[in-house]
Amino acid sequence: MELSIPLAADGRSPYYEQIYSYIKRELLTGRIRKGEKLPSTRALSLALSISRNTVQTAYDQLTAEGYLIPEPQRGYFAADVQWNYAGENAAAAETFSPDKAPQTEDYAVDFAPFGVDVAHFPFATWRKLAREILIEENREVLTGGDPRGEYGLRASICRYLNSSRGMRAKPEQVVIGAGTAYLLMLLTQLTGSRRIAVEDPTYRHVSRMLKRLSHEILPISTDRQGIRTEELRQTDADMVYVMPAHQFPTGAVLPLNRRQELLRWAEERPGRYLLEDDYDSEFRYRGKPIPSLSALGVSDPIIYLGTFSQTVTPAIRVSFMVLPESLNRDFDEKCGYYSQTVSRIDQEVLAKFMDGGYFERHLNRMRGVYRGKHDALIEALQPFAGAFSVSGERAGLYLRLTSKKGVPESRLIAAAKEAGVKIYGVSEYFLTPRESASVLLGFANLQEAEIRDGVRRLEEALL
Amino acid sequence: MELSIPLAADGRSPYYEQIYSYIKRELLTGRIRKGEKLPSTRALSLALSISRNTVQTAYDQLTAEGYLIPEPQRGYFAADVQWNYAGENAAAAETFSPDKAPQTEDYAVDFAPFGVDVAHFPFATWRKLAREILIEENREVLTGGDPRGEYGLRASICRYLNSSRGMRAKPEQVVIGAGTAYLLMLLTQLTGSRRIAVEDPTYRHVSRMLKRLSHEILPISTDRQGIRTEELRQTDADMVYVMPAHQFPTGAVLPLNRRQELLRWAEERPGRYLLEDDYDSEFRYRGKPIPSLSALGVSDPIIYLGTFSQTVTPAIRVSFMVLPESLNRDFDEKCGYYSQTVSRIDQEVLAKFMDGGYFERHLNRMRGVYRGKHDALIEALQPFAGAFSVSGERAGLYLRLTSKKGVPESRLIAAAKEAGVKIYGVSEYFLTPRESASVLLGFANLQEAEIRDGVRRLEEALL
Repeated sequence: MELSIPLAADGRSPYYEQIYSYIKRELLTGRIRKGEKLPSTRALSLALSISRNTVQTAYDQLTAEGYLIPEPQRGYFAADVQWNYAGENAAAAETFSPDKAPQTEDYAVDFAPFGVDVAHFPFATWRKLAREILIEENREVLTGGDPRGEYGLRASICRYLNSSRGMRAKPEQVVIGAGTAYLLMLLTQLTGSRRIAVEDPTYRHVSRMLKRLSHEILPISTDRQGIRTEELRQTDADMVYVMPAHQFPTGAVLPLNRRQELLRWAEERPGRYLLEDDYDSEFRYRGKPIPSLSALGVSDPIIYLGTFSQTVTPAIRVSFMVLPESLNRDFDEKCGYYSQTVSRIDQEVLAKFMDGGYFERHLNRMRGVYRGKHDALIEALQPFAGAFSVSGERAGLYLRLTSKKGVPESRLIAAAKEAGVKIYGVSEYFLTPRESASVLLGFANLQEAEIRDGVRRLEEALL
Repeated sequence: MELSIPLAADGRSPYYEQIYSYIKRELLTGRIRKGEKLPSTRALSLALSISRNTVQTAYDQLTAEGYLIPEPQRGYFAADVQWNYAGENAAAAETFSPDKAPQTEDYAVDFAPFGVDVAHFPFATWRKLAREILIEENREVLTGGDPRGEYGLRASICRYLNSSRGMRAKPEQVVIGAGTAYLLMLLTQLTGSRRIAVEDPTYRHVSRMLKRLSHEILPISTDRQGIRTEELRQTDADMVYVMPAHQFPTGAVLPLNRRQELLRWAEERPGRYLLEDDYDSEFRYRGKPIPSLSALGVSDPIIYLGTFSQTVTPAIRVSFMVLPESLNRDFDEKCGYYSQTVSRIDQEVLAKFMDGGYFERHLNRMRGVYRGKHDALIEALQPFAGAFSVSGERAGLYLRLTSKKGVPESRLIAAAKEAGVKIYGVSEYFLTPRESASVLLGFANLQEAEIRDGVRRLEEALL
């Protein structure tokens, strides 16, 4: 059998997925029949002039789903798809897509605010370190491990927090977990239900999660400087969730006086806590990174949340929290029976990545990459200076554009869509519903040329 | 500098940890001084006649914690430990131990019921598959991925459940998560607070977690056959947590009539659910594996929990649940904003492990290994036939020994301890406090010779 698969190099759908979908459709519609032998991965990769790994990935996926049957030394054969649970109707052929949502919509440029750049991931280093961990002599790595996370990784995190965030945390205070959501669940076991003040607007997922975890959510309005601490004092909150280094979605950096006010508030009454989410503090393009709240020298009322999703890759799912002593001492009793959620192998690879200096090198490199994208976006946006103000710049992976005339975000988004550009409103992040004239432009997973192209299109649509 | 480290080959503490502790102590007590150069990993491994990797692991740990400073091309140097946060007092030198608890107690043989055998993990295969995934062409693996878990892995799990557990689940019903505890948290978001009936005794961690997740727990007593379904009917429970394939800690296999009664109970009223924990169904040494509840053909009231902790390794932290349609349709709305907790890289490695036939081969091998240990234990226990009955055998990784004379477990455990053997009581698993004359003997991470040695010691202590 020969397959002539029409590959579209528009970047919207990876090749392996196009091959996957094509073969699946051919099978479900009966054009490839049960028992037919498919071209070898080698033959198909040569015919399509693409890497053999790409074909292999598609074949693996088709095999995983039961569409192809691999026979050692012989090759791949078409399965009887009537047998297959997914084969009930041919429409199912379209449903597989690992990251469907962003790809099926028809945008030339997508300024997604939660993206990260995956083009510069140090695969070779990671492979090498994984190989060093996955050795017979290192069998301990297969056993359960510490519920808080491996001591070695916790120590590496402390040294990093010390040098990069000005914090003096001990490994004994650190808890590693597979994502911020999971850590918030653990934290809830320690704090019990709380009245949690949050910045309005805020990171919606977190406020929703906190609510579902049966906390009461108290929105506090923000101004240019960030959370309005005098408004906080008018509530009966006993915890505050803040992003002082780079607030989402406003992009504001909380100034020192507000930080001190937050700390004062927390220290006035025992049992009050500041929940500091330091999600993207590493990427700061002018000046030094903003120190964390904990760096102010008072650590007891602060619970610190950090993640490697932005700095390494979201794929490895490693987040961590630093607990104040008053909560930490109850951890073993209240949370000790939750097994660690991050693979011990991954923990050891990450610890080696940090200890070997690779993490610092990678961060420096990514700072350069992101600075380039950030600067390209700022420069391209110069024609917008009359009609729009830019905020949240100089840090993070997105910035905010606000219409000076107050054009509502829905109109901005619709006009951009006409021009083939996806931009993101901020009103959905407000807990108190309100009109917004602001949009977010994320730049992390765009190339500089795409950024310029996107802004040119926005110019025609919005100016 | 030369170090003569006295290594103890008693198996209680791994070599790398002994090296780690020795050097740390030397540093903290000032016997190794700031700036001194340590022996190279090569020199030390030759001097101690151990693998260089072992020394490297110790040095890496010491480096991670700031005790040693590595200098490229030059070697390792002693840090100024006064600076180090962990160096406040020399007592801290003793605190590091990745799996302290089981190692510091003084037992010759530990029949831990939750152990697994890590000696047969296919490191070479896993390394190879990880290398195949960690390639530049496969950058998608670095992006966020599906909150439910990768479709490919979910499809592999379904094919496995179909062939091995007789279930007809669709990938769309499967949710992957980092451990059962996390999945129970997600599940709670879907079911809301429930009145959950549990077998008494049961797996304590789960019942505690369910309670903390604000469910009400209703203990139902068990007899030789398992959960007493007529007692269940006298409660107002709307969910039941059961381990039909191999109940912990009784080891009972729920017979077909009880299974049918459970299903009948669940189907009588809409909104009732059976939460089936199938934690170690794979290891069955006589006859075929017991099918899951879902295999009976009715799937709606059943929530199925599975894990790869026993079958592959607890290190990778991959569990999964299969949701019935009535809960599944709300998943995206109620849980869609929780990011997937398992590394996408690990998911893809595991999918390849399953699809390439390695999983089946590994399972077959481990079944043989565990059968050997199980049979060795059963045979060694023959002299106990007069005074003890054995139950829970022929499956799983532990069995239960019950004193026919009703000698309380506390006395059995104390006598065994005298003989240097650790055995485990079952009374702590009862929700309704009661005396027990039973102990658990886990055999997974013992060698057959250790099993025989342990039982010989028990013979003297208990008979």
